Amino acid sequence: MTRKGILFIISGPSGVGKGTIKDAVLEKITDMQVSISATTREPRSGEINGRDYFFVDQHRFQQLIDKDELLEYANVYNNMYGTPRQFVEENLNRGQDVMLEIDIQGAFQVKLRKPEGVFIFIAPPSIEELSLRLAARGKDTQKSIELRLAACKWEMEQLKHYDYVVVNNDLKNAVDKVCSIITAERCKVKNFNLERDMIDSSFNQGSNGSGP
Amino acid sequence: MTRKGILFIISGPSGVGKGTIKDAVLEKITDMQVSISATTREPRSGEINGRDYFFVDQHRFQQLIDKDELLEYANVYNNMYGTPRQFVEENLNRGQDVMLEIDIQGAFQVKLRKPEGVFIFIAPPSIEELSLRLAARGKDTQKSIELRLAACKWEMEQLKHYDYVVVNNDLKNAVDKVCSIITAERCKVKNFNLERDMIDSSFNQGSNGSGP
Repeated sequence: MTRKGILFIISGPSGVGKGTIKDAVLEKITDMQVSISATTREPRSGEINGRDYFFVDQHRFQQLIDKDELLEYANVYNNMYGTPRQFVEENLNRGQDVMLEIDIQGAFQVKLRKPEGVFIFIAPPSIEELSLRLAARGKDTQKSIELRLAACKWEMEQLKHYDYVVVNNDLKNAVDKVCSIITAERCKVKNFNLERDMIDSSFNQGSNGSGP
Repeated sequence: MTRKGILFIISGPSGVGKGTIKDAVLEKITDMQVSISATTREPRSGEINGRDYFFVDQHRFQQLIDKDELLEYANVYNNMYGTPRQFVEENLNRGQDVMLEIDIQGAFQVKLRKPEGVFIFIAPPSIEELSLRLAARGKDTQKSIELRLAACKWEMEQLKHYDYVVVNNDLKNAVDKVCSIITAERCKVKNFNLERDMIDSSFNQGSNGSGP
């Protein structure tokens, strides 16, 4: 059986560990394309255009916005970052799953354009726990931690707009759950091209559905 | 976070191996209540009422049918078998997941009464493969195998009414997929009692959702 590519969105409050989870999931599930962002910032040493980012200038970025060619975008410290729709859709159309790790505001923008995506919310064990994590990370001042916690309360309320919630109280456990969600979604009947495949009465179910 | 109990229905064509898969899944996922059938047949040696079956007489069974207290029922070799609704619902109401292994006709009856159940279709690698399996099982005559294969073609077409499909081309792989589906469903936001649990801003996600 062949199937459509699935867009997985890993999202959640700042500092919840979604980046770490994403990296660990990608080590286990290798047949997954990570979305590549477009950005206006300068390439750093070793970064390659089309692998790490699509590096574009301000004019081109504005074009992408104007033509609705970004699934989401944001201004971070005066640099623009966005998710090119074309790269994602080309992969999905050939049955390749795509993963996108993004904050909650970005996830909402994606959901408006890709409501059929699988939205996974990574939640902290508690607001207090998140506070400790942000402090331990040492990247943030006390003031910014307080602002983030206030934001986090709003963010937790957005959980209801997601398909799945995974509490990150233990990294291995959280990674296993995200992997299970991916495996399960790959078994969803609605993602298979049933009418095309029923004809030969033989069924294969490779992880990317494009096996022989 | 606490959550609602989920009803998992494992179903598929006769001879596809759904019973073997169910048993292997239950060895891995121990916090799962198996549905207990009501039957009019006599208890066999060692069978205990309320553990192996609910043994009832014909009159009582008819009462259960008349009061719509069975999620499904069937006549098998002149004995009646059915799934008592009350046992399933009592478990679900206290947050306990329930598993039901059943043929396709039965699954459709359950779906009419429990459309929110999670319906998992176990598929053979191919119709030909199923033929070989039925023959190897040795329980069936050539004539009955032919009848079953004709039925199987109809059964495969019913796949579209299910939520998930797992191709049983390798037992371990199929068991892992069903376990992943169970884990994923347990992470579904819609299965959590969000409004009740958001109040204390602390999140736990035990496998049965009833942890401290």
